[in-house]
Parts: sequence; C-alpha cells; structure tokens
Amino acid sequence: MSANTPPPLSVDTDRLLADLQALSAIGAYKSGVHRPTFSPEDLLARAWFAERLAEAGLKPEIDGIGNVIGRALSPRALLVGSHLESQPHAGRLDGPLGLLYGLAAARALRAAGLAPALDVAAWADEEGWFGQFLGSRSFLGEVTDAEIDAARQRSDGTPLRSALAAAGYAGRPRAALPPERYLGYAEAHIEQGDRLESERRRIGVVTAIVGMRNFIITAEGVQNHAGTTRMEIRKDAGLALCKLCVAIDRAFPAATGPGSVWTTGRMRFKPGEPSVIPGHAEMHFQFRDTDPALLDRMAERLAALIAEANDAGPCRLALAPRSTTAPAAMDAGMQQAFAAAAEALAPGAWMRMPSAAGHDAQNFARRMPAAMLFVPSIGGISHHWAEDTSEADIVLGARVFAAGIHRILATS
Amino acid sequence: MSANTPPPLSVDTDRLLADLQALSAIGAYKSGVHRPTFSPEDLLARAWFAERLAEAGLKPEIDGIGNVIGRALSPRALLVGSHLESQPHAGRLDGPLGLLYGLAAARALRAAGLAPALDVAAWADEEGWFGQFLGSRSFLGEVTDAEIDAARQRSDGTPLRSALAAAGYAGRPRAALPPERYLGYAEAHIEQGDRLESERRRIGVVTAIVGMRNFIITAEGVQNHAGTTRMEIRKDAGLALCKLCVAIDRAFPAATGPGSVWTTGRMRFKPGEPSVIPGHAEMHFQFRDTDPALLDRMAERLAALIAEANDAGPCRLALAPRSTTAPAAMDAGMQQAFAAAAEALAPGAWMRMPSAAGHDAQNFARRMPAAMLFVPSIGGISHHWAEDTSEADIVLGARVFAAGIHRILATS
Repeated sequence: MSANTPPPLSVDTDRLLADLQALSAIGAYKSGVHRPTFSPEDLLARAWFAERLAEAGLKPEIDGIGNVIGRALSPRALLVGSHLESQPHAGRLDGPLGLLYGLAAARALRAAGLAPALDVAAWADEEGWFGQFLGSRSFLGEVTDAEIDAARQRSDGTPLRSALAAAGYAGRPRAALPPERYLGYAEAHIEQGDRLESERRRIGVVTAIVGMRNFIITAEGVQNHAGTTRMEIRKDAGLALCKLCVAIDRAFPAATGPGSVWTTGRMRFKPGEPSVIPGHAEMHFQFRDTDPALLDRMAERLAALIAEANDAGPCRLALAPRSTTAPAAMDAGMQQAFAAAAEALAPGAWMRMPSAAGHDAQNFARRMPAAMLFVPSIGGISHHWAEDTSEADIVLGARVFAAGIHRILATS
Repeated sequence: MSANTPPPLSVDTDRLLADLQALSAIGAYKSGVHRPTFSPEDLLARAWFAERLAEAGLKPEIDGIGNVIGRALSPRALLVGSHLESQPHAGRLDGPLGLLYGLAAARALRAAGLAPALDVAAWADEEGWFGQFLGSRSFLGEVTDAEIDAARQRSDGTPLRSALAAAGYAGRPRAALPPERYLGYAEAHIEQGDRLESERRRIGVVTAIVGMRNFIITAEGVQNHAGTTRMEIRKDAGLALCKLCVAIDRAFPAATGPGSVWTTGRMRFKPGEPSVIPGHAEMHFQFRDTDPALLDRMAERLAALIAEANDAGPCRLALAPRSTTAPAAMDAGMQQAFAAAAEALAPGAWMRMPSAAGHDAQNFARRMPAAMLFVPSIGGISHHWAEDTSEADIVLGARVFAAGIHRILATS
C-alpha cells in the first residue's frame, strides 16, 4: 500500500441506517419528509443533529442563522456539510444523507484511533425557503443584516427575523469562516437525477456544479369579460405566457448543450377567474448549465424570444432576473481522492459527472478546495416524497465518502 | 298614437343617477366596486336596495338565499331583475344598473298615475361566488337544500350556509315563483363588450343569450428536480397545459362561429416551485355561443385536441365538465316592445344583438317570456373596475327600459 492509500476505515453502517431512520421520522410525510426551514419539525431536526454531533466528539453550536456546526478539537480540519430542511413534501435523503455520512466518517476515524480532524455542519436553508443558501453564505461572510431583515418565507411570507426569534436563535452570533482552519470542503448528496442509474454506476465524483439563472417573466394584457370580449380584440396575458413557454420548448434545444436544463416551475394568471380574461400573468423560469458561455447563450435566446413575442403582440412581456449562481469547478486533488476511494471500494462502478443541482459546495468552492460525492437516486426522482436510494448504495456511499476523507486528511 | 304606443313616461333620471352614486359608494374600489356575494359590503347593498324598493311602493323581502324582492300590489306583474354583487374589484354598473332601471320604471309608472304592475328583484349571486345563478334558480325551484349544503365561496372556501347565517338570512324561507303571477321577465344590463360602441349604437335589444360550457382540464406528469432531471425524460404537466392552450388558440378559429369566444381564465402548476418540474397542472377553460350546434362542435374539437395531446405524450390530460348553460332565446313580442321604445327615443341608434354574457334572464326564459336591454360599455371593458357607460347612455337606457316596460304592460 502506498503512502497515498491509507488502511480502510470501518464505517458503522448499522448506526448510520438507524440515524437515518430516526431523522426521517421528524416531519415524516409518506415515505419522505416535510421540513420547511425553521418549521417545528426542522427545529427538532436541528436539535437532534446537534446531539449527534456532540456524541461523535464534535463540539456543537447552533448559530444566529440556524447553522448547526460541530467542531473537531484539531487546529485544522476538513469541513463537511449539507442541510437538514427539505423541499415541500419531499425526500428524506436530500441533505440529511450528507450530514449522516459526515457523522459516520467522524465516528470511523475515531474508531480507527485517529483524531477526527473533521468539522460537520448543517447549513441553514439550502432549500431556499427564505433566500439563497443563507446558511453557507452567512458562514462565508456574504450575508448582510439587511438581507436577513428583508427575507421572507417564500410560501407564507413569514419574516426570517420572526422565524429566527421563534426558533430561539435570534441574538446569537452568526458563525464565520475562521481563516486558515480548513483544508477544504466536502459534501455528499443524492444525485437527484437518473444519470448514475441509467449508466449503471453507484458512485458519482462531481466535476463541477451547474450555474443557474432564475427569472420572473410577466405579461401585461387587458383584463376583461370572457363572454363579451370578441376574440379579435383580446389581450390575454395568460395565453401570451403559454405561447412563450411553447416557444422556449421549441427554440431552446438548438441554443443549449447536452447537459442544459430549463424549467417553468410556476405560472399564475390574474385575476385567475374562469370568466375573466387574464389581464396579468407571471411565470418563474430558470435554466442551468456548467458552461458559462452556454448560460449566456440561453439568456440571449430567452431575451430574443421575449422580444419576438413583444413584436408580435398584443401583450407586453417583461423579463426580470431573480437570482443567478455561477458554475463552480470542484478541486482536482479532492476529486482524485474520492475517485481513488470509489475505485478501491466499487471498482468500475463509479463515474465523474457534473452536478445539475445547486449545493452549498458551490459557495465554498470560491474560497477553498471543494468536492462532492453522489449516490444514485432511484428513477432519478427527487424533490418529491418518493425520492429514494437503495440501502446497498447508501451504505457504499458512506464507505466511499469516509475513505475519500481519510485520503484527503492523510495527504494534507 | 295607436293602442300599441302609450304616452311616454317621465323618468326621474337625476334620482336614478343619485341612486347609482349612493349604491356605488358601498364597497367602492377605485372607480368601481368590490362586493363579493354576502361580503359586508354586499349585505349593506342588499339592505340599501330593500329600502329603495319600499320607497318605490314595492313590498320588500330578503329571502333565505339572499334574493331581495320588491312586490307590487297588483295580482299580476312584470318581473324585473338583475344583481347587486360584483366580480372582484370590478365595475359599479354590472348588475346594479338593471335594478336601478327597474326602480326608476316603477317610480315613473307611479308618477304617471299608473299602478306599477312591476316586481323588482336582486337575484343573489348572479356572479357565481358560491355557485351558478343561485338566487334566480332558487326562485325558480331549481336549487335543492343539498346544493346549498355543498356550496362554498370560490376563493376563500366559506360554506354558503355559514355565509347565510352570518348575513342573518338563515332559516328564512326561500321565495318561490308564484304560478300565474308573471307576464314576463325583463332585465337591463351593460353590454360588457364593445359591439354597440364599435357599431355606434346606444341601445341593444337582445335576441338570445349565449350558452356556455365550463371545463377543468388537468395534466398529470411527474414532479421532479428542475436541475437534475434531463430534458429527455421529463413529464412536465405545466408545459403540457401550455401546449394545449396554444393548440386551442390555433385550432378553435376554424371550429367556431363569428360570435364564439373561448377563454383559459385560470392556470395552476403544482407544486408551483421555481426549482420543481410541475407534476400536476390544472386550467379552467370555457367557451360560449348562442348556437347549440357550435357549442357541440367546440366540445368535440376540445376533446380531439386533448386526445391528440395524450397520443403525443408524455403527460396524461383529462377533461372534466364543470358547468353548462344552454343558449336562451328572448321572447319575440317583448323584443319588439323594447325595439319600438328604442326606435321612438333613439331612432336608428339601436340594434338587435346576442348577449355574450350569461344573465339570470336565461333561467327565466325557460319558464316565461323574457327579454333583455343593453347599454354600451365604454371600450367594451367589464369585470374590471374601469368598466363604465357614459351618463348620456345611462339616462337613455333608463328611458328606453321604462318605455319598453310601459309598452309590455299596456299590451298585456
């Protein structure tokens, strides 16, 4: 065995699966969970996770934005993170799995007689109930108090300040990235797509995280009576956005790459009455790719389609950017450590691949070496309670993650 | 003057305009009103109208479904009706104008020394907050207690029973059509379209009221992550309904008549999250025409478009009828009375035309001779607070309506 190949760790996968079962019971919904950020169930999950960190020998803290951070005693450490909250009525693994892998790795290092130079953190609100990656961006010093003052829960409008106060987190300091402490950042996650499954692989080593651009597109028409307004003179804002969706569906394949995705996730007609022609309509549109040039090309194509719609009339469409994230490349050395661990434990059954979903790792990648490891999602399903990963893949993922971390720590 | 041409009545139009101003102040919103059925403002309007009926010598009653009926002392009478409640944030004339015309006609008959053989009624919920023409259909014996038990307010879900109890109407008997009393039914209304304006006419004598078919169309796809789900495997229910809207927009002109209209008034994607591919989507679709054969043709075309969408995939669309009204012909004799009144007071400035909106008159037309009179809507705008009619047209309409009623009573 070379210096780069440390002895394999023994991961207590029974305990991992028991942890997963216990955590999944908090806010259980069918075979998934419903844990909006700072809901009672989410707060319970944070408290539960802080206790597990303490049991694993990591000093836990829940900070002023709801981050749950367990710190090792060592002066330097690898930072492992993911998230606890869920999308609405969604899966039990999306987020929690990465945290339980971190816990399992810390326990395995300790069991092997090694000081676990590992901090494990649940970043608050990765799922964007109140904003965009609030927890990890706060830790990185990128969130101002004014942003927190302005933030509202996306579905019920609760101010973030009220939610933090109700949680008992108000007034606590927000934890900040200590200079020099971290060797890098590692995050394990379910793939949330079907690529591993369709290529019959069990582990994905992430090469880059896609960038994403989010827009709100509005159409202004004229609200009028659905019976008495002749078809010829209508300005139907709802129909205008439906036409735009279909135009995007036709035009985008030629403007995009093989990994590009685009989605209209929300559509609203106003006033939304069966007998009233919609005078206003609004849609949320987003696209993603790892290639900044392709993101620019999609943005141009979208603007052109909206300009064409405005030239054709009769409604007036407008495009407003809502949020943007840049693509993030993963660290080559850390990728190699996970690749070697995967090849050792699952020879030939792993692959390198981009992440088509956003993750806290993309924020850390701007400040330190970062890496991500994926396990397969059955049927590619996620953001739905039916999301799942086979127990064999969950267990293999925990072993590869711990072995990869062991390699990174051994070579740092 | 022949026996068919009674002396002109003198309508107190100053009082009519003052009434309109007073009624429009109840629930005022910008230049219109917001008076959902059985909202506090609507209840105030009902009480106000009952007082005006009593002042006009008509015995007022508010019945167990909220109908406000003022009865003449005569054994037989012409029934005049319309409605008090509004669409959301909509116009002040849609409904109330016809009631104030009825009041003005009763006063004018009395001022001319004639017993006003006129019952004037505000039918509850013509605007369909709780159901379909509940007030007029209740009066006609077409509403069961079970229908009332099941009815809910369309936007906030309040049970109709609770709303009636809160209004103080619960436990009152529901007024019923007395056999033999009525000579016919007359209703004046704003046109709510731009046909009178575009043909430069000031009065419309309605020939028939359109039939309408309402549907809920759903699409079932697969809810999934908007980043990780490859475009090729998506089953996007939202996109499926957008495509259907555009297909309807393309196909319907060839399947319909010159007066046909069709509208998608509501569209919802579920879960409606920016980063989730909609797994379910729902739209409200309706079409209208005076010709039953054209209504059948549109229904066939719609079913064919949905079948084509299902053949093309990948989502499953389903069509559920929500409500249907049949076209209703207006009585030839009553039409002739209003036509003669219009020609006498506005020679050459009137026309015969269908009603593209539904009205309580369509229910009465099944049981007695019925007629409708229209005044122009500026810019064809209605179901919006900007709805309006010029004061000169409001005044002319009141005179033609009273004169038409005078003719009908004189020849009955």
